[in-house]
Amino acid sequence: MRKIRLGIVGCGIAAKTLHIPALKELSDIFEVAAVTSRTKEHAVECAELVGGAEVFESYEELLRSGEVDAVDLALPVELNLPFIKKAVENGVHVICEKPISTDVKTGKEIVKIANGSDVVVYIAENFRHVPAFWKAKELIDAGKIGEPVFTSWHVWVGMDEGNPYVHTGWRKSPKHVGGFLSDGGVHHVAAMRLIFGDVAWISAAVRDLSPLLGGLDFMSSLLEFESGVVGTYTAGYSIKGKDRFEIVGTDGRMLVEWDRILLNGEEIGVNPENSYKLEFEDFYRVVMGERENVLGSPLEALKDLAVIEAAVKSNGHRIDLKSLLDWSG
Amino acid sequence: MRKIRLGIVGCGIAAKTLHIPALKELSDIFEVAAVTSRTKEHAVECAELVGGAEVFESYEELLRSGEVDAVDLALPVELNLPFIKKAVENGVHVICEKPISTDVKTGKEIVKIANGSDVVVYIAENFRHVPAFWKAKELIDAGKIGEPVFTSWHVWVGMDEGNPYVHTGWRKSPKHVGGFLSDGGVHHVAAMRLIFGDVAWISAAVRDLSPLLGGLDFMSSLLEFESGVVGTYTAGYSIKGKDRFEIVGTDGRMLVEWDRILLNGEEIGVNPENSYKLEFEDFYRVVMGERENVLGSPLEALKDLAVIEAAVKSNGHRIDLKSLLDWSG
Repeated sequence: MRKIRLGIVGCGIAAKTLHIPALKELSDIFEVAAVTSRTKEHAVECAELVGGAEVFESYEELLRSGEVDAVDLALPVELNLPFIKKAVENGVHVICEKPISTDVKTGKEIVKIANGSDVVVYIAENFRHVPAFWKAKELIDAGKIGEPVFTSWHVWVGMDEGNPYVHTGWRKSPKHVGGFLSDGGVHHVAAMRLIFGDVAWISAAVRDLSPLLGGLDFMSSLLEFESGVVGTYTAGYSIKGKDRFEIVGTDGRMLVEWDRILLNGEEIGVNPENSYKLEFEDFYRVVMGERENVLGSPLEALKDLAVIEAAVKSNGHRIDLKSLLDWSG
Repeated sequence: MRKIRLGIVGCGIAAKTLHIPALKELSDIFEVAAVTSRTKEHAVECAELVGGAEVFESYEELLRSGEVDAVDLALPVELNLPFIKKAVENGVHVICEKPISTDVKTGKEIVKIANGSDVVVYIAENFRHVPAFWKAKELIDAGKIGEPVFTSWHVWVGMDEGNPYVHTGWRKSPKHVGGFLSDGGVHHVAAMRLIFGDVAWISAAVRDLSPLLGGLDFMSSLLEFESGVVGTYTAGYSIKGKDRFEIVGTDGRMLVEWDRILLNGEEIGVNPENSYKLEFEDFYRVVMGERENVLGSPLEALKDLAVIEAAVKSNGHRIDLKSLLDWSG
């Protein structure tokens, strides 16, 4: 099987703790051939973690080296647009960490660049690869809760001093809309959209509760999906607690967890596979032309971000997603 | 101790199953002296239940008989305004079942009538007499969860064919705003307002899910209290499930149930006293001039109803409660 020669760009927490472990399990289809990072020691560290890779002084040199087929961008969000643009200009495929961009406006630029290019632009949203969410959708589609009516998701991240993400420079002074609300929130929106489809509108209230966390760190919202399902989604990044993701139908209900679903009180086990591994596998197949880019579609990632941007703008007012995703502007 | 001579007006489910059992426990302060009901057999039945009381052919005769100091109105909601008006005109005190009226407009009339009168007009909202809600407020005020940030209340009433309220004529073709949404919802709003204070705004989505239940039977909402606490409140009248009322603070959380509070995982028992009994006791003290009419205040009941009326009108749009409670119109 042909391997994709990958260049890791940005050797921060995501690359080291999420991507490289997944890529190591996928050594039959990926070869990490090159790394680069603003801080050279981080690049050297990553090169060692992957068991040896060429360290480039700059992104441009890496792109032009001819040694990579694709780049894996794990960067401060505000760099996604210029870095994706350069990769595409150099004919190099891209897998890029979510959120797609700092806001919908620049995210649209990425969608346009991707649409106008022959290389793959894949936005890595690992929640679209989490088996429990697909299982929930399967059970709903099979009528196990009657007609789906309502969902409620409470996420309590509870970040404190000990959490490494809190101290990332670009997270402390976020340029991405809503700070942690979009950084974490696009994951949850992706999962809800996977299960319930596109969001029609959202109304939300947001807060900056914790001085430790840069930018906003709490939101609660009411949203309606185009399917008619109603939901409330609440995320507290400084508040500790047990997450609770419930789906209620006319004739049953379920609680969705990572490794199981409680369907009408009955436990259904779900294999909590490494979603990052599934994500890179999917990227591989898309690059190889074996699959359409559905799960890494920039437009899907843009729709996730738009829901959070709408929430940040809402202050209780109804924001129709169509107004943000309009392409005439 | 002087007894209040009470006339029960309307001998339906509320009178028979909620009020009369409470009044029997309060025979030292209430004497049910008279009853009347549109259906005479119901009045006779009620008279028997209380161990004998004069059955009047009409409300007017009962009011003018000189045999009652106060009336207990447990009527189809649309009759509250004319029946309260007549009682006040006859100098008879009133305790009247919630919701205060069919809508805010007519509810305001009741508030005006009450304010312009020397007799007591007391709206019976038993949730304002539930010990668990007062205990929750006490724990929050004592700082047990840090600063209160968020509340989420899911109510799953799950009414089916076997539920007597489903078959009440005025509930099958509701003239009161939102049908079950206000009939049940004012209770929950009363409890939330007791704990968190007045509601600043609400955004909501409503549904008519069940053909068995007259009018609307599902709502989900996002609301912000004037204190800054954010909440989601969801009620499904046709959907079965276990209720869940959670309050989250910056430094802790609680689950509020009828007979206990789970505070940061620790169980605190609460005596689930008969809230109808506490309500009638409070009414007695107000009539006797021993207490201000705080818990039975028509204005408070109006504010409860206004939140539900706003929810019904919302369709995701933010409705500021001030706009409904404006008195200039």
